[in-house]
Amino acid sequence: MLHIAADNLDKFVLRVLIALGTPDDLAVIVKDSLVGANLAGHDSHGVIRLPMYADAIHASVTKRSTGARGEALLPATRAIVIPAQAMLATVIVDCGWGWGPPAAHVACDQVIARAHQYGIGVTAVQHCNHIMRVGQYVEHIANAGLIGIVFCNSGPGVTPFGGTGRVLGTNPIAIGVPRAGSAPPVFLDGSTSTVAEGKLRVALDKGISVPLGWIIDQQGRPTTQPADFYSGGSILPLGGYKGYAFGVMVELIAGMLSGASAAFLPDYAGGNGVVILALRPDAFIPMPTYLANVERACHALKSVPPEHPQGEVLLPGEPEQRSRAERTAHGIPMAEATVQSLITLARSLSVDTTMLNPT
Amino acid sequence: MLHIAADNLDKFVLRVLIALGTPDDLAVIVKDSLVGANLAGHDSHGVIRLPMYADAIHASVTKRSTGARGEALLPATRAIVIPAQAMLATVIVDCGWGWGPPAAHVACDQVIARAHQYGIGVTAVQHCNHIMRVGQYVEHIANAGLIGIVFCNSGPGVTPFGGTGRVLGTNPIAIGVPRAGSAPPVFLDGSTSTVAEGKLRVALDKGISVPLGWIIDQQGRPTTQPADFYSGGSILPLGGYKGYAFGVMVELIAGMLSGASAAFLPDYAGGNGVVILALRPDAFIPMPTYLANVERACHALKSVPPEHPQGEVLLPGEPEQRSRAERTAHGIPMAEATVQSLITLARSLSVDTTMLNPT
Repeated sequence: MLHIAADNLDKFVLRVLIALGTPDDLAVIVKDSLVGANLAGHDSHGVIRLPMYADAIHASVTKRSTGARGEALLPATRAIVIPAQAMLATVIVDCGWGWGPPAAHVACDQVIARAHQYGIGVTAVQHCNHIMRVGQYVEHIANAGLIGIVFCNSGPGVTPFGGTGRVLGTNPIAIGVPRAGSAPPVFLDGSTSTVAEGKLRVALDKGISVPLGWIIDQQGRPTTQPADFYSGGSILPLGGYKGYAFGVMVELIAGMLSGASAAFLPDYAGGNGVVILALRPDAFIPMPTYLANVERACHALKSVPPEHPQGEVLLPGEPEQRSRAERTAHGIPMAEATVQSLITLARSLSVDTTMLNPT
Repeated sequence: MLHIAADNLDKFVLRVLIALGTPDDLAVIVKDSLVGANLAGHDSHGVIRLPMYADAIHASVTKRSTGARGEALLPATRAIVIPAQAMLATVIVDCGWGWGPPAAHVACDQVIARAHQYGIGVTAVQHCNHIMRVGQYVEHIANAGLIGIVFCNSGPGVTPFGGTGRVLGTNPIAIGVPRAGSAPPVFLDGSTSTVAEGKLRVALDKGISVPLGWIIDQQGRPTTQPADFYSGGSILPLGGYKGYAFGVMVELIAGMLSGASAAFLPDYAGGNGVVILALRPDAFIPMPTYLANVERACHALKSVPPEHPQGEVLLPGEPEQRSRAERTAHGIPMAEATVQSLITLARSLSVDTTMLNPT
């Protein structure tokens, strides 16, 4: 593994995004999303995806030049807010097939504003590309003092309980709650499958196997080889029928309300179907009381006797916070294959690659 | 196993509830909740709990007669709606330590009304006893044409990932979506632990073991004996750290917003901390389109090739619907120990027990 300083990766990714046609202000948001995922320890949603996004942009330019509509990745397109509905706590955001993270941040700010007025707000994001690590949005909402919930569907990769083949998306759910003072939010960001697809891609780049029970091959046989997923295999749902049911509900809420459709239907639009909620705790309980109670709960969980003598109970979100501290200080570990793919991309865009030199 | 006709069980439970001091109209709702859980196949949340509720009522009468406040089960107490907040899409319902299901139904109707006006509505239920099978509430909301979501915490029984002992509640999440015409809703109702506590009680009454991986004994060792749970063991979180994280978020949302507190804190009030949301699909997409899309999704899922030649893919909620049809036609199977406990209870209340004769 190579270690790249976060600052250098920041600058490198920003230049690549701008070279790809992204306006500076949007590029900062997308860069924060990509490098932020690496810092949080979720390499699956980090810079490993940059070459794929670049390919999508190039393909989109070709596609749009022929007059075609539909899924694309248009780096200069800005999200728009659809004017207020009669239903006042709701709003639609149209990503317009621009970058996902800036659109999702517009959506977060919209639901935060509605929650301030009505106690709760909800949005669906249309024509939306990959919003990357969904946890970042509930962290953002929680940092604004509200409870955040995100449902997000995605392309087919998960086999339904009792069935065969790639049907459901990995369909993550994220939930975050605010904490007192400068303490980072408690948050959950998890696919409703055993594993997110990107984590298989990371294992593939590293040349390592994955735990038995995560995936099956094209013939439905259990396997530990991530390559078997990419040659027609499927990811299993989390905990069998429960994860399957959660995954279906994400399709029927996030897929359907956003207009993205369900991953397994012929009109599935691609990208992510996204629904975001924000909720004010002080609709129910004074905010200082809520924050004090959350602190008491966090302290009690950290005080639970561990399973193993040297172990500990972690709060949801704590692994990401620790990874951020460690990787900010000591650099972001990356497989050589991943770095090489970034160098190849940068050269094609005449972007300087010296920032990718290991620390 | 004995088989009791649903009609007879209905009449029997209604008489017991009234004999326990429940007003007729509330008794019908509680009876529907209990027998409805049996019909849906969730015996864990059905009439097996009636003797426990009776004990709680008797203990409460004694407790209240001494002037004590706090957790109780007061069968004649009616839920009240706390007058409208400044935050318009939100409302608080106070169960007042009456029966849980009538209060939760008041809460559902409140959030449905708010969702009709604002697009989404949310409530927290205070001083709330066990609301029984949480799926019934999202079915109710979905039958009114809205998407329903319930978070519900409960007493400590689940060990945290990486920790030991009983800490979290089983903390179910339920989600339901409406369907076209008379088709029953698609819904999920699942604990964030491997299993709901009541399912261990059912296994104990039946004298059967449970799958390895559901529970650990007081020393933290894996076990298949449900009795080990009741002598100080714990339930494991669903899928390890993901189920643990979902369980924590339910404590911090449903436990904290309702005032019930988290299961593992000294001020935990007992009962259920409940938060219910209702969301109008037509805030985002015309209702006929939404319903047609859900039907297409259901049809596509049912058309997935099964894992086993004689198998099939079930929609979330379909097992409950099949159980209802089967048990309505052929009676509700009950362990002899369960029937005997109901007979003992009925005799103590001078309620006729001939309705419990097997079909």
